[in-house]
Amino acid sequence: MSTTLEGPMGQLLRVQNFNVSRDGFGAGEDQSLERPFGHADPGAMFAWAGATASWPMRTDPGGSRGLDDYFTRDYARGIGAEIMGRNKFGPQRGPWENLDWRGWWGDEPPFRTPVFVMTHHPRPSFTLSDTTFHFVDDDPAAVLERAKEAAGGKDVRLGGGAATIREFLDAGLVDTLHVAVSQVELGCGSRLWKSPDELLDRYHLDVVPSPSGVTHHLFWRR
Amino acid sequence: MSTTLEGPMGQLLRVQNFNVSRDGFGAGEDQSLERPFGHADPGAMFAWAGATASWPMRTDPGGSRGLDDYFTRDYARGIGAEIMGRNKFGPQRGPWENLDWRGWWGDEPPFRTPVFVMTHHPRPSFTLSDTTFHFVDDDPAAVLERAKEAAGGKDVRLGGGAATIREFLDAGLVDTLHVAVSQVELGCGSRLWKSPDELLDRYHLDVVPSPSGVTHHLFWRR
Repeated sequence: MSTTLEGPMGQLLRVQNFNVSRDGFGAGEDQSLERPFGHADPGAMFAWAGATASWPMRTDPGGSRGLDDYFTRDYARGIGAEIMGRNKFGPQRGPWENLDWRGWWGDEPPFRTPVFVMTHHPRPSFTLSDTTFHFVDDDPAAVLERAKEAAGGKDVRLGGGAATIREFLDAGLVDTLHVAVSQVELGCGSRLWKSPDELLDRYHLDVVPSPSGVTHHLFWRR
Repeated sequence: MSTTLEGPMGQLLRVQNFNVSRDGFGAGEDQSLERPFGHADPGAMFAWAGATASWPMRTDPGGSRGLDDYFTRDYARGIGAEIMGRNKFGPQRGPWENLDWRGWWGDEPPFRTPVFVMTHHPRPSFTLSDTTFHFVDDDPAAVLERAKEAAGGKDVRLGGGAATIREFLDAGLVDTLHVAVSQVELGCGSRLWKSPDELLDRYHLDVVPSPSGVTHHLFWRR
């Protein structure tokens, strides 16, 4: 079960635990400092993961160890780097007014690997605990190449948001996707898809309803 | 997502990827050197795991990366030792006639940790590649204590067979169980349960049908 057994595909680009609404949005409209997911309530969309024993921000003991826990604990398995869009990193748009903003995650970001933030406005890299953020102005294939180098033989996680995942899908670079579809309806926002069936020409799909109410969608290349 | 986040439960005793027939048997009757699972066809019972990309005995590239792959690749995650019954280790019964038998798995057993084989007929420990087999004549609680010490802070996997799992269940020692129920009917053999509902007084249960035809049963303590 070591990574060397993964065969000639080598390092994978994996989407893990990405949450979308029933109508296909990864976040709502009008992202701001106070509302990282715009008009979407992240509590409702992420509740399935927060209820599990492996949820990294868990402060009390307990938590479920059923199906949803498998997905929560698989988040970091075999991952050596993450790629994310700038809107996942912060609410600012355009040139940086200053460099005070260091992400939403406080002094111990949950990534614990190099993270490549895609932006037309690069800034110097910085490190918080086990996570180093790099800022890159390049196309998906070139960013993936850099992330794979930094991952030391491990896989690369594509962290979102939806627009960033779409870019990598359109470039044919994504190997596997796990998308958790919640019962929430958003109506508008950052769209991943109109229907998961859009990917069936290129991917196999397992649809797995969870007792928690979320439906896990697992895609891998045909 | 490190083991230190697992809370005060500390090290868990986990059953992982244990296969039973639709009528609740982990193996058939009449185990022998040629038929480790007795009259049961292990190919039919394990097919779901063998089809996945993470199957450790896979020799060709490819394999599925959907739901069943999550279970296959979770087999060794965070595991520091295994406990198994003697019938999982070999087909012999009674005192050892000689010590030539070193398990079913060849020179590279898939466990890669200390393994504690429960038997009334102890023999000296031996090592094959990354796996060391110890032979212990003791009750479940005492064997679990030894295995937890050997696991170096990680969890312990309870490998089966069915009779061994029943012993640990009856002693209240099992924290989580993943049992894959196949469509095969065996009629007789080594029984895990008449129905998974027998455990509902003590465990939560997620029942997760897989597109491959197997139904994953995930139990964790109430």
